[in-house]
Amino acid sequence: RPIRTGERPRVKPRRGVEMIAFVIGVCTVLSLPFGSNGEAIPQKPTGDVSIMPPIKPADGPQAFPDAEKANMPVFTMDYPRIQLPFEITLWVLLASFAKIGFHVYHKITVWVPESCLLIAIGLMVGGIMHSVHEEPPAVLSSNVFFLYMLPPIVLDSGYFIPTRAFFENIGTVLWFAVVGTLWNSIGIGMSLFAICQIEAFGVQDINLQENLLFASIISAVDPVAVLSVFEDVSVNEQLYIVVFGECLFNDAVTVVLYNMFSYVADMPEVEPVDVFLGVARFFVVGLGGMGFGLLFGLVASFTTRFTGNVRAIEPLFIFMYSYLAYLVAELFAISSIMAIVTCAITMKYYVEENVSQRSCTTIRHVIKMLGSISETLIFFFLGVVTITTEHEWNWGYIMFTLLFAFLWRGLGVLVLTQIINPFRTIPFNMKDQFGLSYGGLRGAISFALAYTLPDNIGRRQLFITATICIIIFTVFIQGISIRPLIELINVRRTNRNLDTINSEIHCRVMEHTLSGIEDLCGQWSHYYWKDKFMKFNNLVLRKILIKDKRAESSIVALYKKLELQNAMEILDTVTGDLSAAPSLVSL
Amino acid sequence: RPIRTGERPRVKPRRGVEMIAFVIGVCTVLSLPFGSNGEAIPQKPTGDVSIMPPIKPADGPQAFPDAEKANMPVFTMDYPRIQLPFEITLWVLLASFAKIGFHVYHKITVWVPESCLLIAIGLMVGGIMHSVHEEPPAVLSSNVFFLYMLPPIVLDSGYFIPTRAFFENIGTVLWFAVVGTLWNSIGIGMSLFAICQIEAFGVQDINLQENLLFASIISAVDPVAVLSVFEDVSVNEQLYIVVFGECLFNDAVTVVLYNMFSYVADMPEVEPVDVFLGVARFFVVGLGGMGFGLLFGLVASFTTRFTGNVRAIEPLFIFMYSYLAYLVAELFAISSIMAIVTCAITMKYYVEENVSQRSCTTIRHVIKMLGSISETLIFFFLGVVTITTEHEWNWGYIMFTLLFAFLWRGLGVLVLTQIINPFRTIPFNMKDQFGLSYGGLRGAISFALAYTLPDNIGRRQLFITATICIIIFTVFIQGISIRPLIELINVRRTNRNLDTINSEIHCRVMEHTLSGIEDLCGQWSHYYWKDKFMKFNNLVLRKILIKDKRAESSIVALYKKLELQNAMEILDTVTGDLSAAPSLVSL
Repeated sequence: RPIRTGERPRVKPRRGVEMIAFVIGVCTVLSLPFGSNGEAIPQKPTGDVSIMPPIKPADGPQAFPDAEKANMPVFTMDYPRIQLPFEITLWVLLASFAKIGFHVYHKITVWVPESCLLIAIGLMVGGIMHSVHEEPPAVLSSNVFFLYMLPPIVLDSGYFIPTRAFFENIGTVLWFAVVGTLWNSIGIGMSLFAICQIEAFGVQDINLQENLLFASIISAVDPVAVLSVFEDVSVNEQLYIVVFGECLFNDAVTVVLYNMFSYVADMPEVEPVDVFLGVARFFVVGLGGMGFGLLFGLVASFTTRFTGNVRAIEPLFIFMYSYLAYLVAELFAISSIMAIVTCAITMKYYVEENVSQRSCTTIRHVIKMLGSISETLIFFFLGVVTITTEHEWNWGYIMFTLLFAFLWRGLGVLVLTQIINPFRTIPFNMKDQFGLSYGGLRGAISFALAYTLPDNIGRRQLFITATICIIIFTVFIQGISIRPLIELINVRRTNRNLDTINSEIHCRVMEHTLSGIEDLCGQWSHYYWKDKFMKFNNLVLRKILIKDKRAESSIVALYKKLELQNAMEILDTVTGDLSAAPSLVSL
Repeated sequence: RPIRTGERPRVKPRRGVEMIAFVIGVCTVLSLPFGSNGEAIPQKPTGDVSIMPPIKPADGPQAFPDAEKANMPVFTMDYPRIQLPFEITLWVLLASFAKIGFHVYHKITVWVPESCLLIAIGLMVGGIMHSVHEEPPAVLSSNVFFLYMLPPIVLDSGYFIPTRAFFENIGTVLWFAVVGTLWNSIGIGMSLFAICQIEAFGVQDINLQENLLFASIISAVDPVAVLSVFEDVSVNEQLYIVVFGECLFNDAVTVVLYNMFSYVADMPEVEPVDVFLGVARFFVVGLGGMGFGLLFGLVASFTTRFTGNVRAIEPLFIFMYSYLAYLVAELFAISSIMAIVTCAITMKYYVEENVSQRSCTTIRHVIKMLGSISETLIFFFLGVVTITTEHEWNWGYIMFTLLFAFLWRGLGVLVLTQIINPFRTIPFNMKDQFGLSYGGLRGAISFALAYTLPDNIGRRQLFITATICIIIFTVFIQGISIRPLIELINVRRTNRNLDTINSEIHCRVMEHTLSGIEDLCGQWSHYYWKDKFMKFNNLVLRKILIKDKRAESSIVALYKKLELQNAMEILDTVTGDLSAAPSLVSL
């Protein structure tokens, strides 16, 4: 089954050079941090020039015995001072090299998802580190993950979400994200509790609350690998957006569940009022996150009205405001993921009209870049930490965890689809349901949450081991097999909609017509509300948030955007020549 | 003297809204960090729902007395956890708001340089912080400055240096940077030592070494404000590039001198061998920095050969490699500024041909953005720290410091120009010399170095106070008055050279001709070497460092670049319309 072999021959002759370059790159990067072990590298003598401790006063009081003669040093070294930024830079470079390496051999990434390869490399690096007794990077505390590595990934997802498809399917998305995650957590938790009662497995000490806590950790679906497969084989838009949305929002649900259960795990008994407060907290967390996101999104849009003279720092506002939304949400322990996603969705439309073309390109590229590198690093560290952590292995518990996670996911999709299908214009068929349930890979969020488990949980080690097992199992087995399976059962495809003026105009006409018909019928569905929102947007929001001079029709703006995209693509080709007159591609 | 009043009327009607927006923005940002004081904000009760300490296990062991009934918390707060990223984000936002504010009132920045305004706002914020007994941000340790805030600024300068003009004037630049800085340091140091001998000032305890150390701190010229003025009134290219280059390279010289003198200040006596080693160190530091920069620049170029399939993370390599060059140079205590500048100059040419148009835009924009915000933050903090630091005031010493700094700079430029003028094609006239010497503002580097002074220097407080004085004096008095003076004495102007295909072709023809003539005459100057380098570049470097498919003429590449610039500019205007056929502007 040769896939995309069209471009292969051109790459072949260069393979040798590229392989060597890649190996050298990786070796260089690998060799650097291991020489150090976090302390100053022993200073090498250079001829007769005496070597002194570093001069810079940064490293504490200097101890020069007056009696000893000390010449002016010509060569000094001070590793601890630069250790932190240096090692971060090296890790990022190593991860980037890995990414380049995979893509030079594009054949690999067609069959094996990138996340598998990254974990595999991480396992290797972890093995090397373990064998030289190197400490794992301290980088991977849960705070680092939640405050620095997660935000770029979520911002990336939120900013590039296909807005129209998302809002058309928002009901289904929330249904799967909220109810599906609850279903999984409670189902898996209860079943595992039942398993714990069997004496043979030796895990009777795990109580119901702890089982639920663990279940909430492993019920977060991380569709990184799935999405890239879905994109490649271009499955239908409904399926794509539901998986996309589920990933965004079930993170939020999982974090709440986790907090709730980890609180409950400490309690001697659970009273009814706690259940009620838990439900209340659910809404506070979700709606609060959305509220903060909306607020910061609007403020960001408003701010970019005034950045016309400081184009250089324009993109900074986008990053700062989204990050602030995230941090403030974290501060109040409400859903920071919801906050940053809402912020991104809110501001995208206004900001992109306010800022210059260059800033717009920069914003998009930087968000993609940060998201992509964070993701790479996480999978990579997942591999490293798998090796360097102490594990507690329990065949029974771990096997049943795998089984239940798989079963409850399948069952959940089946049941939830039966309930939601009557409300959908295009219902999910059996093949879509297979895609949805088989795409239930676990990933970074589960991993980070497992590490965040407090020490007073008796079987913490076991939970971590089980979580890593389920992540590696789903990412490797399901991740690798999902592409052939999707192609085999022939899941409904879609034409990737080319963004053209023509389709945009037709869509708008259809929507206006539909909202008119709905109005006549007296049945108000989302077309009606969309129409109302667009009116409000044009009359109020745009007036406040968008610079005056940009008062052009949005169709013209779209045309310009497409033209520029087109121009840039032409210029990137070898014989690219803009003089081929105004393009008609975008029409 | 109305300057640039052409666009004023359009801005006027919106002034009210903008002023309000700005004030609200600043107040919001200001109010946030002051409520906190670095500890958790006291939690507000919300109705009858009991408030509990944060659940997240990040904040240590939880103390729930079993006896006490604790309900599920609906609202929690955990400030210390997010404090660091939150406060950094707020400082950056505050600085960005300040920048927006100045540019909304463009009239201010025409007469008062941005750095003055930033320091002024910093003084105000410092005043507020002082009055509420807030600690100054810990952000401003010398490590933070040298490892995180300086690299973006230097990368910005290095990446956007006008290469051709720079290499044509490299002799003069190095002459002023190296010899000029030495001249200033030794001159000021000696004179101040002489002043110290006068009993009336009460500073006899400052010995020669300490005076030289202090002089080396305040001899680094920081032309941020000067450059923006020079750019605005478009002085001739020679003057511009010499100020630009001097700023880049005298930082390097200053850092070496500082290290040397701070080492010498500890020594009971200075032997001749130390002087010799000092000179050796000079070359190690300078050439070593250049070597590392060259190495990392070439590796970065080579890496971008292979990033064709991972466009998303392409720009990352540029930032990572330059930063790595900087850090490695810091590690060996050689000139990190030289390293990052050389790296940027080396890789720019190759990288920009290898990466996609979008990546190129992103790289440039992000470098500008980071540089600009770092610069803003530094001036801002300078103001804050001026208020919040303890000072030691000594009229005599500080006044003479100001006087000598001014005198030696003027004298230095006068003498050094006399020596270098015979070697220059276009000699500097008296007006240029005035510009050069009056543009000797002191800035961020001096400030950071003063703070790095070790505690065993007896009069550390006095030195810090004197440094801040000289910075504020030069930035305010000279910075504000330089524009009118430059315009008054009518320094030689230049036509900003519009980058066109036409001028590029003519330049190249001229250069080829000149190198031919030089070859005939047997006199090999820089045209000859440039020609040789271009041949080496085309035959070897380009083959190794640049992707095959980009094997187009550099004139065609330039045409494409200009066309795209043009297209983007057209699209940014209101009535922008690409259908106006291929542009001829770039020809």
